[in-house]
Amino acid sequence: MTLTLKLTGKLFESDELVDVLKAVKDLSEKEDLAVVTGGGGLARRYIAVGRSLRLNEGYLDLLGIESSRMNALLVALYLDGYKGVPRSLEEFVSVWSFKRPVVAGGFQPGQSTAGVASLIAEATGSRELILATTVDSVYDADPRKYPNARPLKEVRLSELMDILARDQDVRAGTYELIDPLAAKVLMRAKIRVRVLHYRDMRRYLQGEDVGSRVVPE
Amino acid sequence: MTLTLKLTGKLFESDELVDVLKAVKDLSEKEDLAVVTGGGGLARRYIAVGRSLRLNEGYLDLLGIESSRMNALLVALYLDGYKGVPRSLEEFVSVWSFKRPVVAGGFQPGQSTAGVASLIAEATGSRELILATTVDSVYDADPRKYPNARPLKEVRLSELMDILARDQDVRAGTYELIDPLAAKVLMRAKIRVRVLHYRDMRRYLQGEDVGSRVVPE
Amino acid sequence: MTLTLKLTGKLFESDELVDVLKAVKDLSEKEDLAVVTGGGGLARRYIAVGRSLRLNEGYLDLLGIESSRMNALLVALYLDGYKGVPRSLEEFVSVWSFKRPVVAGGFQPGQSTAGVASLIAEATGSRELILATTVDSVYDADPRKYPNARPLKEVRLSELMDILARDQDVRAGTYELIDPLAAKVLMRAKIRVRVLHYRDMRRYLQGEDVGSRVVPE
Amino acid sequence: MTLTLKLTGKLFESDELVDVLKAVKDLSEKEDLAVVTGGGGLARRYIAVGRSLRLNEGYLDLLGIESSRMNALLVALYLDGYKGVPRSLEEFVSVWSFKRPVVAGGFQPGQSTAGVASLIAEATGSRELILATTVDSVYDADPRKYPNARPLKEVRLSELMDILARDQDVRAGTYELIDPLAAKVLMRAKIRVRVLHYRDMRRYLQGEDVGSRVVPE
Amino acid sequence: MTLTLKLTGKLFESDELVDVLKAVKDLSEKEDLAVVTGGGGLARRYIAVGRSLRLNEGYLDLLGIESSRMNALLVALYLDGYKGVPRSLEEFVSVWSFKRPVVAGGFQPGQSTAGVASLIAEATGSRELILATTVDSVYDADPRKYPNARPLKEVRLSELMDILARDQDVRAGTYELIDPLAAKVLMRAKIRVRVLHYRDMRRYLQGEDVGSRVVPE
Amino acid sequence: MTLTLKLTGKLFESDELVDVLKAVKDLSEKEDLAVVTGGGGLARRYIAVGRSLRLNEGYLDLLGIESSRMNALLVALYLDGYKGVPRSLEEFVSVWSFKRPVVAGGFQPGQSTAGVASLIAEATGSRELILATTVDSVYDADPRKYPNARPLKEVRLSELMDILARDQDVRAGTYELIDPLAAKVLMRAKIRVRVLHYRDMRRYLQGEDVGSRVVPE
Repeated sequence: MTLTLKLTGKLFESDELVDVLKAVKDLSEKEDLAVVTGGGGLARRYIAVGRSLRLNEGYLDLLGIESSRMNALLVALYLDGYKGVPRSLEEFVSVWSFKRPVVAGGFQPGQSTAGVASLIAEATGSRELILATTVDSVYDADPRKYPNARPLKEVRLSELMDILARDQDVRAGTYELIDPLAAKVLMRAKIRVRVLHYRDMRRYLQGEDVGSRVVPE
Repeated sequence: MTLTLKLTGKLFESDELVDVLKAVKDLSEKEDLAVVTGGGGLARRYIAVGRSLRLNEGYLDLLGIESSRMNALLVALYLDGYKGVPRSLEEFVSVWSFKRPVVAGGFQPGQSTAGVASLIAEATGSRELILATTVDSVYDADPRKYPNARPLKEVRLSELMDILARDQDVRAGTYELIDPLAAKVLMRAKIRVRVLHYRDMRRYLQGEDVGSRVVPE
Repeated sequence: MTLTLKLTGKLFESDELVDVLKAVKDLSEKEDLAVVTGGGGLARRYIAVGRSLRLNEGYLDLLGIESSRMNALLVALYLDGYKGVPRSLEEFVSVWSFKRPVVAGGFQPGQSTAGVASLIAEATGSRELILATTVDSVYDADPRKYPNARPLKEVRLSELMDILARDQDVRAGTYELIDPLAAKVLMRAKIRVRVLHYRDMRRYLQGEDVGSRVVPE
Repeated sequence: MTLTLKLTGKLFESDELVDVLKAVKDLSEKEDLAVVTGGGGLARRYIAVGRSLRLNEGYLDLLGIESSRMNALLVALYLDGYKGVPRSLEEFVSVWSFKRPVVAGGFQPGQSTAGVASLIAEATGSRELILATTVDSVYDADPRKYPNARPLKEVRLSELMDILARDQDVRAGTYELIDPLAAKVLMRAKIRVRVLHYRDMRRYLQGEDVGSRVVPE
Repeated sequence: MTLTLKLTGKLFESDELVDVLKAVKDLSEKEDLAVVTGGGGLARRYIAVGRSLRLNEGYLDLLGIESSRMNALLVALYLDGYKGVPRSLEEFVSVWSFKRPVVAGGFQPGQSTAGVASLIAEATGSRELILATTVDSVYDADPRKYPNARPLKEVRLSELMDILARDQDVRAGTYELIDPLAAKVLMRAKIRVRVLHYRDMRRYLQGEDVGSRVVPE
Repeated sequence: MTLTLKLTGKLFESDELVDVLKAVKDLSEKEDLAVVTGGGGLARRYIAVGRSLRLNEGYLDLLGIESSRMNALLVALYLDGYKGVPRSLEEFVSVWSFKRPVVAGGFQPGQSTAGVASLIAEATGSRELILATTVDSVYDADPRKYPNARPLKEVRLSELMDILARDQDVRAGTYELIDPLAAKVLMRAKIRVRVLHYRDMRRYLQGEDVGSRVVPE
């Protein structure tokens, strides 16, 4: 079975990085795995410098993309798979043809790595897109603001997009999860999403039903 | 001055193709010109075949992108500029460094060539993005449905996006003009847009104030 | 066993396209398959436009090549093989190293896709080159002019080239089959050719002795 | 004005190499110059080894092509132009866009570097194709066999091809000059050819009417 | 005149980054400028993570190289030159052919970016290699250990290499300046080196004789 | 098990070339084999010509690298593996991901193909680096000068480097074996080296303990 896994860029600043990547490696030996990495704090730092140099927003995005590729290279060199980092979806699908794990960062200005992950999940015919992030679940409201926000074990994608549209704060916090490109692609390709905290990767690997399921409806 | 010009794919099925491309060539000799071409009927035909082969939507988009590159190659071979067709924004900006006209088609699934044109306009620091299409203006309602719809000489981008969101039919007709990626990029980069009919390219070249202006506000 | 299959560009305008490609996919699962596609009507249309723009013949050939790659991409995305389209023989043999089906269109101005298919058949050590075209056999004269022209179950390549040289009309009709480059390569590499109508692909797959055999003598 | 110059591979084994390349460099500073180099004895040596390893003819051609690129690299590094060696016509025309001298060797199995030079002359719109070779002129018969063979100051291309077809020995000797692909391309693009001995490059540069002219008729 | 400038990776963590890059931009408008950037703390951080993942040293070097390319991309997007980052010397010299500023990071495991800068200085025929680093001069001993170490206004390269070989501590501190590959290349190509603190770039630009000169003897 | 084999360029001028390559092919069918080829006399010849054209040393190295790639291509086309020649370590490791034999020549000016082989041995995790050269062993002094020089069955790398540093003549003769880059990489990656004469490849293949072992201490 084919899986696409998106690792938040924040993982790469975390003490748990090595443990999580070990779980990812184990996963890559059990399934046909495509991985996408975010840029995290590295991206933010270079974008800030670029902004003080007054680069245009497209160029700032290129710096963010390059940052996500740093993280992708680290993962690619660690996994037993393709030891390069494809720079576009076309390059990704060409390399994917050879049936080895492949790791990508961003592809293009104007989109998140969640969008990239959705495009890859679609092109590889993935059974599921796993979003390994810094929240342990999807909530029905922003848990930082509403103490009694309830975690959702399962949510429809359309519903999730409504929550995001309604509540700007939630949106800001979860934008990284699913942006409009990602939503569009997941819906048209009918791809299930699992949102989980990266530190639950090992439990996921062992078959536990961790995090939330987003159903493409 | 730098300009980005997007040519609708429908132009490439039109009897006026040669005349319009002559105007484009003249323009490329006066300004630093980046050109983006749509896929038009060719894209639609290959996507239909791909759909009957049950290809996934991402692959269908790749067929549409390849169609737009056919049109881009035709224009590139005709202009006195770069004789290749860049396949990503990164490749575009690398080639653009050498100060010659460059022509691109699509870059990636999940986005329109209007999005591509916006990204290019931003990266090249274009003074204006010209959308050469099959309507002679932006209207305040769908002119095919409302006979007294009024053409707008100038419209704010936010206003235009509101019209598009309100009126699904207008949206269907003008989606090609400006999709969400394009809107986002044009807004953040503060790029003016001119919407005109491709058969008015020659008049535009001669300095006439044809079509509509979209102001990035 | 390795096979090279050349699909005429005309197939891609035919109602039988989907059925034929299904047979090709089945074939690719039984044999090591290299596929080459022609440009067909798409090539002719873009070449005509290019000619009215007064492009040189080399550039017109590039448009024809790009058209054949459109068709190649469609097939590549459908087969379970390499999801890119190699642009030169060198790129082809590099990708072929990884033992997956590969699909190419044209490579270079001044040659037909039959020439490309011969080069690929040689480089891959193909047991046979299958030319899937719009005639069901090789004839001893042009069947459109001579009602009693006889189909040839087997013909020597040198003999076929003589027929082509003698009869300009036959030549015009079958030029697509075997051009001088193709003949030269087939002869030197001693590759057997099978000429069949594309609608007989399924019967060929089932082991029937359809079409004509051309023996490299 | 644009010129394409083909240097025989034999030049690269000659004592006059340095002098001739100096003349080529001077020429590249006066005209827009595209250069193509043959493989010469280097190609023959590697092809012989490859044959004793029983490589197929297509692979032997690849060795010949790589040899011609060795010579191309030498010239490219010496001229003040593009410091790479394009590997296909498409790559050539992309690089040529930037208005610098470009040097290529072979492109593809099954064709001579004379064919390559013709394709380049066509694509660059060259005023003339110069074939710098080891004969000082075209003759009306093989001068090695017929002592009173007469040099031809000017000859029509069709006539030259007739001589080559009639006289196998002449053909063997001059095949390097113009093969069928070259003839076809030169004719369709109406490119004049000048055949001269490489040691006359300096005189040609000074405006002398050295060698033979081949008229594309 | 052609100059090669190597910027230490430490610059990219400094508050003076923007000011220094402005001086570099001014320099790039006066001279034909090639720039090489180090990886700095970013490289060290990713190498440390890679080491805890037990990657081999060659892969760790690849992470360091990718880090230096992050910095190179930032500079390339800021300068008015080539907007890509060449990944090998061959790619560098190809792009350099088009007479625009080019920025590179590392090329290959097993060598420092000082080695890269020397190779580029040699290939571009640079009049001088400027090493913009974190020391304001070359000293005759390690100034951190010997308070009365004297700065050297001019030093022969062979002498400098002797100091480095004799004094391991100096070597550790200045290894970044000139490693064995760099020394070998500078010597054979007879390239002068200027060592200066990056914050003196502006003064250098204004013609001051800042830092130390290393003479290739 | 993974092995890296470096073939001296001199092999390619030897009468034993075909026999040796047959042994290499047999080896490639038993082990995961990476091969690196030297440039030999071909490199020397082109470098000499380049020098008379007054090319810089970096460009001369590029000619040497291209020569080594000629030899690499010959081997690649003969083995049943990747039919291209990677031009950098990054390209090498990407292609190596697909678990097929890969052959490289040089990568970059300023280093020997022994350095390349060490980098490849490290990146591929090779159990051993085999240096197939023109001496049958490592000696404790230059055997051409000291008739009673003794062959060493096993030698520590540090010891070997001392011998090389002490005895310039030995160094000149064995420099091809191990240059400073190679020594550094072999030491850090703890790779065993076997030095043998290329004509002993067959015996090595049959499990004989031919040549000398160099231990990375």
